[in-house]
Amino acid sequence: MTTETGNGRSRTYTWQDPTPTANTAREKSGPDLFAAMIGGKLPQPPIAHTLEFALTEAGEGTAVFEINCSEFHYNPLGTVHGGVIATLLDSAMSCAVHTLLPAGSGYTTVEMKVNFVRPILADTGPLRCLGTVVHGGRRIATAEGKLVDADGKLYAHGTTTCFIFSV
Amino acid sequence: MTTETGNGRSRTYTWQDPTPTANTAREKSGPDLFAAMIGGKLPQPPIAHTLEFALTEAGEGTAVFEINCSEFHYNPLGTVHGGVIATLLDSAMSCAVHTLLPAGSGYTTVEMKVNFVRPILADTGPLRCLGTVVHGGRRIATAEGKLVDADGKLYAHGTTTCFIFSV
Amino acid sequence: MTTETGNGRSRTYTWQDPTPTANTAREKSGPDLFAAMIGGKLPQPPIAHTLEFALTEAGEGTAVFEINCSEFHYNPLGTVHGGVIATLLDSAMSCAVHTLLPAGSGYTTVEMKVNFVRPILADTGPLRCLGTVVHGGRRIATAEGKLVDADGKLYAHGTTTCFIFSV
Amino acid sequence: MTTETGNGRSRTYTWQDPTPTANTAREKSGPDLFAAMIGGKLPQPPIAHTLEFALTEAGEGTAVFEINCSEFHYNPLGTVHGGVIATLLDSAMSCAVHTLLPAGSGYTTVEMKVNFVRPILADTGPLRCLGTVVHGGRRIATAEGKLVDADGKLYAHGTTTCFIFSV
Repeated sequence: MTTETGNGRSRTYTWQDPTPTANTAREKSGPDLFAAMIGGKLPQPPIAHTLEFALTEAGEGTAVFEINCSEFHYNPLGTVHGGVIATLLDSAMSCAVHTLLPAGSGYTTVEMKVNFVRPILADTGPLRCLGTVVHGGRRIATAEGKLVDADGKLYAHGTTTCFIFSV
Repeated sequence: MTTETGNGRSRTYTWQDPTPTANTAREKSGPDLFAAMIGGKLPQPPIAHTLEFALTEAGEGTAVFEINCSEFHYNPLGTVHGGVIATLLDSAMSCAVHTLLPAGSGYTTVEMKVNFVRPILADTGPLRCLGTVVHGGRRIATAEGKLVDADGKLYAHGTTTCFIFSV
Repeated sequence: MTTETGNGRSRTYTWQDPTPTANTAREKSGPDLFAAMIGGKLPQPPIAHTLEFALTEAGEGTAVFEINCSEFHYNPLGTVHGGVIATLLDSAMSCAVHTLLPAGSGYTTVEMKVNFVRPILADTGPLRCLGTVVHGGRRIATAEGKLVDADGKLYAHGTTTCFIFSV
Repeated sequence: MTTETGNGRSRTYTWQDPTPTANTAREKSGPDLFAAMIGGKLPQPPIAHTLEFALTEAGEGTAVFEINCSEFHYNPLGTVHGGVIATLLDSAMSCAVHTLLPAGSGYTTVEMKVNFVRPILADTGPLRCLGTVVHGGRRIATAEGKLVDADGKLYAHGTTTCFIFSV
């Protein structure tokens, strides 16, 4: 909830202790983890509450996150900070890789690259960020992501590399 | 302010309307803008309050941001989300480029790449993100960034490309 | 032509002075330039002869290059050097952007990123590198590229950013 | 050796069968392999002859390659092709990582990014490409590279990620 008083704004939001989800993530396959999260049986992670976005779909090698940007995402130049965009792309691309992992596998994102192609404002409207696996190797997986509005207009795109290991 | 009740957490924070700063950014040189921000004469941008980090130094072609990570930055795997790290690197690298711009110049970040080399936790302690211009061209500038702890241990590094234009 | 004598190899190849093509590139639109090159009215550039690859197709926002890798592309580890792969992706992605440019426009590639997903050997067979524009802006354009074999198996992929200007 | 007849050019060059070096690479540590190559006891790899560049120095976490660009490196726009620049950076950054590996370790380059900041011509003069390890992890290592002329002027820079494994 955001309140305004003159130039001042105040926002209060809530999240859940992430430890149970992190422990579950080690025991479940990617698809089971995400089904629980989308179905509300596991909470979305703290960062999703802090930046007000959510995982809404997860398929085999794909994941979708949604956001509706607000003033609290702004940089000093009066547009949504590139880091918010990077957060969505990192989430969508990493989760797309995670959907391919069986229980007992872990992964870490080793790098990501983002191209910012259009500015995003508080009145841009709902955005969808779609991550898709490009190469699903045994140790190294790569994915790409696109951030688009309801008309399919592109705002940013990226690629990532993940390292997969046994836990 | 963050409060805990069982597994539930609630956080309330405040920020200022970013419009005056964005307008000032168009009229001031980069160094003047950042001096006002560090000196408290202009507010830090909304995203800095949302993710609790701050610009603390700006030189000629360099900028430093500081953060102390918390649970509200976490991803589902129980570590600080890569997007928070990307936000710091984007801030430090873009501002480093901005310090070279006279009044009447604008810029936009066209791309960034981040390498994540160590996980960050809520008890990792204070981190500094140093951005440095690598190539300061008339139209295209590039910068690099490093995210380190108090001992200089590296957690992430990146590079960016900015496009500079007249406003 | 490559000849072998014991462990020693010798290769002789030819190319044309690139100055006429470079001058033509400034006067022609991208599509006209590439039609002349594919049709043999303008020579392929020196690097295409040095590394034995060729532009074979150019559409609106797309370009295809083909190569059949050889021992002379090898790195010290006995596989095709990543730089050869980067050369193909850079060619395909940059030309894809160039196909959108009218006469009187120039461009420069400001950055590229490549993911290497499978090793390439001298007996891998013919490879196609397809470049596709992702965002065709007035000043900044981005493109992606994929390097695949005849079965569509992926060997590498990448993205690039180009800066467009008037000449 | 390059010969010119009107607009036509012909170049003949030689290299050695890379198999002995590739086999040696599996048995030697990085420093031993590179000392043999710089000292002329092992041949430089085929690609180094094809593009006329050479490894000239290798330290602990660093490597230097040198080139003097020629017309045979040119793209259709009349400058050195970005892929040649990427080849140098990939070589320098990958070898920098390789200098840290003991005998019995192998590595593969999973991705690289290059920023091109100035055009290179046949009369640009000798260039040095310095690769330096940024993060030397057990499984993942990252490095950065800079391509400069004799005065230290920067032409390109990049970063890479390598995956290290036992052989």
